[in-house]
Amino acid sequence: MSATITPMNTVSVDLGERAYPIHIGAGLIGRTELFAPHIKGASVAIVTNTTVDPLYGDQLRAALAPLGKKVTTVVLPDGEAYKNWEMLNQIFDALLTERSDRKTTLIALGGGVVGDMTGFAAACYMRGVPFIQVPTTLLSQVDSSVGGKTGINHPLGKNMIGAFYQPQAVIADIGALHTLPERELAAGIAEVIKTAAIKDVEFFEWIEANIDALNAQDEDALAHAVKQSCEIKAAVVASDEREGGQRAILNFGHTFGHAIEAGLGYGEWLHGEAVGCGMVMAADLSVRLGKLDEAARKRLVRVIEAAKLPVVAPKLGDDRYVDLMRVDKKAEAGEIKFILLTRFGATEITGAPDQAVRDTLAASV
Amino acid sequence: MSATITPMNTVSVDLGERAYPIHIGAGLIGRTELFAPHIKGASVAIVTNTTVDPLYGDQLRAALAPLGKKVTTVVLPDGEAYKNWEMLNQIFDALLTERSDRKTTLIALGGGVVGDMTGFAAACYMRGVPFIQVPTTLLSQVDSSVGGKTGINHPLGKNMIGAFYQPQAVIADIGALHTLPERELAAGIAEVIKTAAIKDVEFFEWIEANIDALNAQDEDALAHAVKQSCEIKAAVVASDEREGGQRAILNFGHTFGHAIEAGLGYGEWLHGEAVGCGMVMAADLSVRLGKLDEAARKRLVRVIEAAKLPVVAPKLGDDRYVDLMRVDKKAEAGEIKFILLTRFGATEITGAPDQAVRDTLAASV
Repeated sequence: MSATITPMNTVSVDLGERAYPIHIGAGLIGRTELFAPHIKGASVAIVTNTTVDPLYGDQLRAALAPLGKKVTTVVLPDGEAYKNWEMLNQIFDALLTERSDRKTTLIALGGGVVGDMTGFAAACYMRGVPFIQVPTTLLSQVDSSVGGKTGINHPLGKNMIGAFYQPQAVIADIGALHTLPERELAAGIAEVIKTAAIKDVEFFEWIEANIDALNAQDEDALAHAVKQSCEIKAAVVASDEREGGQRAILNFGHTFGHAIEAGLGYGEWLHGEAVGCGMVMAADLSVRLGKLDEAARKRLVRVIEAAKLPVVAPKLGDDRYVDLMRVDKKAEAGEIKFILLTRFGATEITGAPDQAVRDTLAASV
Repeated sequence: MSATITPMNTVSVDLGERAYPIHIGAGLIGRTELFAPHIKGASVAIVTNTTVDPLYGDQLRAALAPLGKKVTTVVLPDGEAYKNWEMLNQIFDALLTERSDRKTTLIALGGGVVGDMTGFAAACYMRGVPFIQVPTTLLSQVDSSVGGKTGINHPLGKNMIGAFYQPQAVIADIGALHTLPERELAAGIAEVIKTAAIKDVEFFEWIEANIDALNAQDEDALAHAVKQSCEIKAAVVASDEREGGQRAILNFGHTFGHAIEAGLGYGEWLHGEAVGCGMVMAADLSVRLGKLDEAARKRLVRVIEAAKLPVVAPKLGDDRYVDLMRVDKKAEAGEIKFILLTRFGATEITGAPDQAVRDTLAASV
C-alpha cells in the first residue's frame, strides 16, 4: 500500500441495510484497503471503457492483486451513445463466459455511462450481485455515484430502462480528474451548481467564489465540491430512495436537459452540458411563472457561464421539445412536471401552462 | 360484474410493504373488482401471447373496461424460446410508444414466460412500475406467481438476467386451466409435487391420493393444489425474499432440470418436465449420498410418473451436464450446489463429489 496516505473524506449514504460509504480523496484507486472490505466472493469483474482502462486500469488491478481474486476486465467503447442494450449484453456475455457467480463483485471504473451500465448489470445479473463504483469523472463523482440510479437508454428516451440498485461502496479518486477533458469537467460542475442551487445557498455562494479554482482543477476545491454535493444528495436520497417525492428536486434542469440530449441524439451534448442549459431554461420558466426573481436567475446564469457551460439551447423546434419532455419519467398522464427554483436552496415541482413553456423555449434558443 | 360469484381463496404473501394477495378460483379473470384496487394510474398495458390473447384477452379487457383506463395490449409469440431480450424490448417499445408513465400498470396474462418477462419489464421500465400477474397455466399459478422472480434467458444460461420484483396482486383463474394442453398441465403438477416433497409430507400424500383428479383437471383438486403450493411457497419466500438461504430449497430438481433445458435448447422440454426429471435425478443423488432411503425415492418417482412426467433424462453426455450445472445461479466459485431430499418435507443444500454426480447421470439417462 502507498507510503504517503493523502487525506480522505468519507460521506455515508444512510439507506438502512443498503447503506454504503463514499470515499473522496486523491490517489484512492490504488488503495487496496478501500476495496478489501467490499469484495466477498472469489472473483471480480472490472467494467471500464477504452479511454479509462489505459489511464487507470492497471492501477486498479494492482490494488486488487493482493486480494488474490480472479480479476476480469470488460472494456466497452466510450460515450453516451453506447449506453444501450448491446453493451449491457457484452457485460453479461463476459460474466457468463467467465462463469461469474452470485458473489462476483462488479467494479465500475469510469464515468456515468460506465457506472450506470455496470450498476444495472449488477442489478440484473443473476438478479443481483454486489458492485463498487470507481467514478473517474466529476459528473459521476457528484451525481451518478449517489442515489442508486442505474440503467440504459432507449431510442425513445434516456434512462428509460433501469433499476434502483445501491453499490457496496463508492471510491471517488479526485486525482483521476486531472485527465478529464475540459468539457467533461464543466459538465460535472453543472451538477455541482445544480445541487447547491436547489438545496444550499451557502454552498452556492462558495461555488460563485471558487469557480476559477474548480475550472483550474484545484484538488482541494474539487474535493470540497464533491464532498458537499455528495452530502446534499445523500441526504435527499436517504429521505426518498425510490423517488416518490422529495428526490425529484435533483432533476432540476433535467426536464429541459433530457429533451436537449434526446433531441440532438445522445452524445452530441454531454449530459452535464444539457443540464447546465436546462437549468437556465428552468430558471427562465421559474421567473416567467412568478416563482423566482430576475436577480437570482441572472446569478445562476452567470455561474453556469463562468463554468464554461452552454446557456443557449439548441434549436429543435417547440413542438419537438414539448414532445420529448412528455416522455420524461416525471411526466404523469402526459403532463410534464417541472422542477422550478423559488430561491437558492428552495424548489417547487409543478406543471406549467403550455404557453409559458413555449415562451421559455423561444427565449432560450 | 358476474351474477354468480364462485368461491375464491386468497393467500397473502407477507413481504412487509411489498405484501400482496394471490386470489385463487374459477372465473376470476372477468371480475373487475379484483383488479380495481391495484390500478392507480390512468393506463394499463396487458402483456400476453398469441395463444392466450384469443382465449382470455377479451375477457380481461371487458373486466377492465368499467375502470375507464387506457388499455394497450402487447401480444408476444408463445414459448420459452422467446423469453429473451428482443421480446422484452418489444414490451418497452410499446410502453414508450404509448407514452406509458410511472403509474402505468402492467398486467401479465399468460404462463411463466409472459409472467417473468412482464415482471422484469415492470421492474425495469422507468426503474419500476406496478404490475399484476394473471397466470393462466398451472405452472405459473403455483410457481412463478409467488416469489417475485422475474427475468429473461441468456444463450449461456436460463433466467440469468432478471430482478426480484413483487406484483401488486396475483389473480389465478383455475378456469383458465381447462384450455391447457396435457403436457403443460403435467409440467405444472411437477412444481406442485416439488413443493409438497420439500416441505409438507401430508400434502405429498394428498397428491399421491389425488393425482388422477389433478390429471383430469378437477377444479376443486386444482384449486386445493394451487392454494397449498402458494401457501408453502409464500411462507418460504417471506422468510427469505432474496434467496440468501432457505429459499434455495425451492430449487429442488432445478439444478439438473436447468441443465436439461439448456442442454436441449430452451423450449424443447417444458420447464416443469425438466424439473420433474430433475427431481428424479436429485432423489437418486440423495440416495447415493446416503441422505434419503430408497423407498422414499421410489414413491417420488412413482408420483412423477403418475403425473405423466418424464423420469428418464436426455442423453447430453456427463461433461455437458456438469458444465451446464456449473453456470447454475446456485453455483459458487464453480462448485455446484444441490438441493437433496432427506425425507418428505426436509432437504439439505450441499455440494457433491464429482463421481456421485456422474453416477447419478449414468443411472438417469
